[in-house]
Amino acid sequence: MKLLRVGTVGAERPALLDGSGVLRDLSGLVPDIDGTLLADERKLAALRAAAASGELPRLDADGLRTGPPLARIGKIVCIGLNYHDHARETGATPPEEPILFLKAPDTVVGPDDTVLVPRGSTKTDWEVELAVVIGRTARYLETDEQALAAIAGYAVAHDVSERAFQIERGGQWDKGKNCETFNPLGPWLVTADEVPDPQDLGLRLWVNGELKQNGTTAEQIFPVAEVVRYVSRFMTLYPGDVLNTGTPSGVAMGHPDPKPYLRAGDVVELEIDGLGRQRTALRAG
Amino acid sequence: MKLLRVGTVGAERPALLDGSGVLRDLSGLVPDIDGTLLADERKLAALRAAAASGELPRLDADGLRTGPPLARIGKIVCIGLNYHDHARETGATPPEEPILFLKAPDTVVGPDDTVLVPRGSTKTDWEVELAVVIGRTARYLETDEQALAAIAGYAVAHDVSERAFQIERGGQWDKGKNCETFNPLGPWLVTADEVPDPQDLGLRLWVNGELKQNGTTAEQIFPVAEVVRYVSRFMTLYPGDVLNTGTPSGVAMGHPDPKPYLRAGDVVELEIDGLGRQRTALRAG
Repeated sequence: MKLLRVGTVGAERPALLDGSGVLRDLSGLVPDIDGTLLADERKLAALRAAAASGELPRLDADGLRTGPPLARIGKIVCIGLNYHDHARETGATPPEEPILFLKAPDTVVGPDDTVLVPRGSTKTDWEVELAVVIGRTARYLETDEQALAAIAGYAVAHDVSERAFQIERGGQWDKGKNCETFNPLGPWLVTADEVPDPQDLGLRLWVNGELKQNGTTAEQIFPVAEVVRYVSRFMTLYPGDVLNTGTPSGVAMGHPDPKPYLRAGDVVELEIDGLGRQRTALRAG
Repeated sequence: MKLLRVGTVGAERPALLDGSGVLRDLSGLVPDIDGTLLADERKLAALRAAAASGELPRLDADGLRTGPPLARIGKIVCIGLNYHDHARETGATPPEEPILFLKAPDTVVGPDDTVLVPRGSTKTDWEVELAVVIGRTARYLETDEQALAAIAGYAVAHDVSERAFQIERGGQWDKGKNCETFNPLGPWLVTADEVPDPQDLGLRLWVNGELKQNGTTAEQIFPVAEVVRYVSRFMTLYPGDVLNTGTPSGVAMGHPDPKPYLRAGDVVELEIDGLGRQRTALRAG
């Protein structure tokens, strides 16, 4: 299923994009798309049956905003430097184990919402990422099978990053990763059954129409299952948590000087095979 | 006011400790203690009036668990290395600007709940900290007055830390800061009007009855108002967010070898002047 949330900010309703590309209203069946729903196999099966019946009410998509496809996110765990091509590009040695940092759920906006360039920013950068959405509590997992079973679905995430804040301001990366609006998510939460191989997804990102990132999750140093298993040894993952699994090469920081960091007025588009497309305009924060 | 939440995990009810030390039930007046309440001046005034009337229903404290004093925490922003004495102790140069990292809200437990030593941990450490609770949205604040006005209250926080995970596992501190149960909070959320000077609070921590930390917020390199103002330039703070403002000297990592890291069976007690006392037993995760 392609689950999504449509409507004005804070008043989104749950919806589904059916096999024919028709938007269907789920608000008669579930209150929202969140960890509670994703942990409820029976409810998910009921949604699937309702979608197959073709009898869900249609929604008119015209002029309707798409919000983030997941409400009440608990935490967002991010994996740093997780693509071979990105490591090569920056001359970094691939990490021996995953680098973890956090984004606050309040950074999440819809896939077409505005991204704000923070005041004082000179190095706002882009990062297209495969987001993994957790559907089952994951705690000290031992096998890749357990890890894959804990995954409810996948989405496109934009891990917007301010490089000066992240690297040059005396400390941890979190400082440049948590500015307001810095995590566009969506358009859809695609359930895991529709993503047969998470290590075979193309990811692309354009700035003002120019292709900047063109990677594949096959280049991930730590594949999705390993990432979930690894994180579960340090943090307990709960239904409704999200993992941003790293970005391929092609970010502004990886360019020769003068690096093409983002400015107000720029337009960034992102897509991942089967997971949909984002389009965000930047403006001053 | 001393606000708190009592009852079993996930079913806590809002309460208040009145001027005579009597526990009073607030569940007839407010659904919970959270950012929505803290942002609502009128509701807080009504609670204050109800407390003064002496007519709030009594609660029998006997055998009643105390939960964390704040529900639905949005994010927890932590300040690293923020005490002069702690910087001296570790031989570190005091940072030029605050070091920021994050803890996930799901690490929060009550002040007397069990703390789990993570599997594979050899360096679980303690840190008593003054927690600042936000009551008003803080975004690019310019003055200390604005910063102090954004603070709803204060609490005792225990920023439990696994030093090997934090420092020796290839990356960002978050990896050693977000293990399950790693942020005991409370017992009370003491409203800011009852904390006349947040830079004049003694903080103490004992392990198995032995005093390990005995500091004062007067030693903070970046005082509370400056921290809130600083953070608001990088992240927007919302009602119900928490800032852990750093720890004074005396952590296990600062001891000579063999360092006395925590083990299952240890008991840690913490207190801050006017903010109450925690007592947590450790057990294997």
